[in-house]
Amino acid sequence: MTENSPRAGLPVVRLKPKAEARAIRHGFPWVYADELVTDRRTQALVPGALAVLEDGDRRALGLVTVNTKSKIIARMLDRDPEAVIDADWFARRIGRALELRARLFDAPFYRLVHAEADGLPGVVIDRFGDVAVVQPNAAWAEDHIEALVAALRAVTGVATVVKNGTGRARGLEGLTEETVLLCGALDGPIPVPMNGATYMADVMGGQKTGLFYDQRPNHAFAARLAKGARVLDMFTHVGGFALAALAGGAESALAVDASAPALALAAKGAEASGVADRFSTRQGDAFEVLEALGAEGARFELVICDPPAFAPAKPALEAGLRAYERIARLAAPLVAPGGYLVLCSCSHAADLSAFRNASGRGIGRGGRRGQLIHTGFAGPDHPLLPQLAESGYLKSLVFRLD
Amino acid sequence: MTENSPRAGLPVVRLKPKAEARAIRHGFPWVYADELVTDRRTQALVPGALAVLEDGDRRALGLVTVNTKSKIIARMLDRDPEAVIDADWFARRIGRALELRARLFDAPFYRLVHAEADGLPGVVIDRFGDVAVVQPNAAWAEDHIEALVAALRAVTGVATVVKNGTGRARGLEGLTEETVLLCGALDGPIPVPMNGATYMADVMGGQKTGLFYDQRPNHAFAARLAKGARVLDMFTHVGGFALAALAGGAESALAVDASAPALALAAKGAEASGVADRFSTRQGDAFEVLEALGAEGARFELVICDPPAFAPAKPALEAGLRAYERIARLAAPLVAPGGYLVLCSCSHAADLSAFRNASGRGIGRGGRRGQLIHTGFAGPDHPLLPQLAESGYLKSLVFRLD
Repeated sequence: MTENSPRAGLPVVRLKPKAEARAIRHGFPWVYADELVTDRRTQALVPGALAVLEDGDRRALGLVTVNTKSKIIARMLDRDPEAVIDADWFARRIGRALELRARLFDAPFYRLVHAEADGLPGVVIDRFGDVAVVQPNAAWAEDHIEALVAALRAVTGVATVVKNGTGRARGLEGLTEETVLLCGALDGPIPVPMNGATYMADVMGGQKTGLFYDQRPNHAFAARLAKGARVLDMFTHVGGFALAALAGGAESALAVDASAPALALAAKGAEASGVADRFSTRQGDAFEVLEALGAEGARFELVICDPPAFAPAKPALEAGLRAYERIARLAAPLVAPGGYLVLCSCSHAADLSAFRNASGRGIGRGGRRGQLIHTGFAGPDHPLLPQLAESGYLKSLVFRLD
Repeated sequence: MTENSPRAGLPVVRLKPKAEARAIRHGFPWVYADELVTDRRTQALVPGALAVLEDGDRRALGLVTVNTKSKIIARMLDRDPEAVIDADWFARRIGRALELRARLFDAPFYRLVHAEADGLPGVVIDRFGDVAVVQPNAAWAEDHIEALVAALRAVTGVATVVKNGTGRARGLEGLTEETVLLCGALDGPIPVPMNGATYMADVMGGQKTGLFYDQRPNHAFAARLAKGARVLDMFTHVGGFALAALAGGAESALAVDASAPALALAAKGAEASGVADRFSTRQGDAFEVLEALGAEGARFELVICDPPAFAPAKPALEAGLRAYERIARLAAPLVAPGGYLVLCSCSHAADLSAFRNASGRGIGRGGRRGQLIHTGFAGPDHPLLPQLAESGYLKSLVFRLD
């Protein structure tokens, strides 16, 4: 590669003269719209088009994918402006991602590719044994889906690949919603071994890719507290914290969710885990169930609240923090003296400090005091670029209440 | 207890009329000097004196210990202003602390009491089987050491209690430095089982209480990455990360420290762990050793830097962050391609964001790029009061470098 001779045929996009190329040279993966010269040629690029990014002095910075409809107008694909995005290129990226997961986990169940941090902007791949679920939440990836899937199969040996096209980002990229089986076969939900339990993942019809791997270390931590405990798992989805707690020796677990299909999968998981006799479910709105349990005088040694993102983006921050506070206020009184309360947030907009304060306020307003014994994030199969680490979305706080 | 009739005989200290009692009512454990009426009677209190704290309207808020020489002029001991600080009182606090640790750990090796968060301001107790090391870093605790030790022995059954009086805070409290055996017997360093390795803790002569329990979960995480790796453990103390990595299957570990006695204990620990054949040490200044290893072209699949606090307090912050950046810059080139770099900070003044930025800059200036795969804090035997959670001092960042 020579820095000044980009591959023939690719369009060139250029940073404005005053735009700072240093961050990009130091690994920042994005170019914002106001940093790029958006002449008519650039405006004409279809979402997902590949281009060579140059600095204001026409030195090539790398190969990018362009989306003129997005605030993030260009995303770095390769520092080499002459890189060719083919199956070999995908195989190198996926191979590097696989190496980390193979080192971390005994069994092939994990998030295999976590977008930018694994060098594949907008692409998420979850692996369930010999099944992989790909979320190509960016137009460039949709354009190259065949090469991506060929590489994925070659590197990992998975037989079945599902394309899950339900990500919120797809609209921006001009992509349609669709979930399709790209190759191989599926025979109902997939059993997933994790933290000593077995979860059932519905990779065609479930939320996101069927299972949330990100909470694995937080499930494991909660399970250490569960021996002999009565457990309440709010927003359980397919049994997230509840099944891990039962595998860890909990006396009983009540799993609550608004979704009947999710609870049915949780019950199947309890069967598969051999803990069905200690597992029960309750369908309903979380706030209503928390209030009802309070009115019933119910008490648990371990209560977990892992709600959906109440503050996914800045405009929702205030209302989101109030919702987190309310959850904590309603949940705290259900914790037996000396018991544990796990509060989670997967809101990008609520940072750790804001979420911790809202949680602490809620616990206080619920008439309780306690210690914070653990702060956890998403597991290591969800790496971050250091330059984007503020964006770590998942927070899990473990309190012990007096 | 009635809120307006504090125990006869105790002095009363009072918040200024405008001082905000709400934070204290909600669990904040400290009163700052500018919030308290400091009349002649209060000024005359000796450090560690007990007193009843009242709000501006003379309503009792609780029993506090007073130190007029400290910016934190009063620390809450008990919300009950009539509480009696005797062996029974200590037994209740220690019993509550023990309950958490017994749930978390299979063997009785842990931080048993972590000061404010365990209801004993300024008091740290580490447990090494049937030996306990008490750091009474506050005058009130020194005054009540007999009741404390009696309760500690009764609740835990430890036979040997060491008083370690080397904490930095003791000067402020008018306490002298001394480390003494209060009861029982000691026969050389104590073997401590942790993360599959055996560490040797010198509880009479070592740093702090002889061993740092706070890094336990971060040692465990690093050990998951260690299989087959050549490991470099900078600032190893008694073998912290190195022994855990070897127990986790590392091919070899080089442990570096400035202290010859610490390295001798590390070597003893390697013997006790059955990994001495894969363990070596190098004594010297960390910066010089990192530079020398760089000049030698040494490469490791796992490098850990766990330095002492470079930024213990605000005035040292800038210099401290530069030191963290320099460590990262010198260490990054020693990491083999695809290897891991663990960077730790135990500086109160450097928050997570500042430390992460300094580390990322250092890695970049060391000519490397990478992913952040894990952020860890002190283990759960180091609880925090939610109101003081910003003070979480220990940060551990795990990067995977390209």
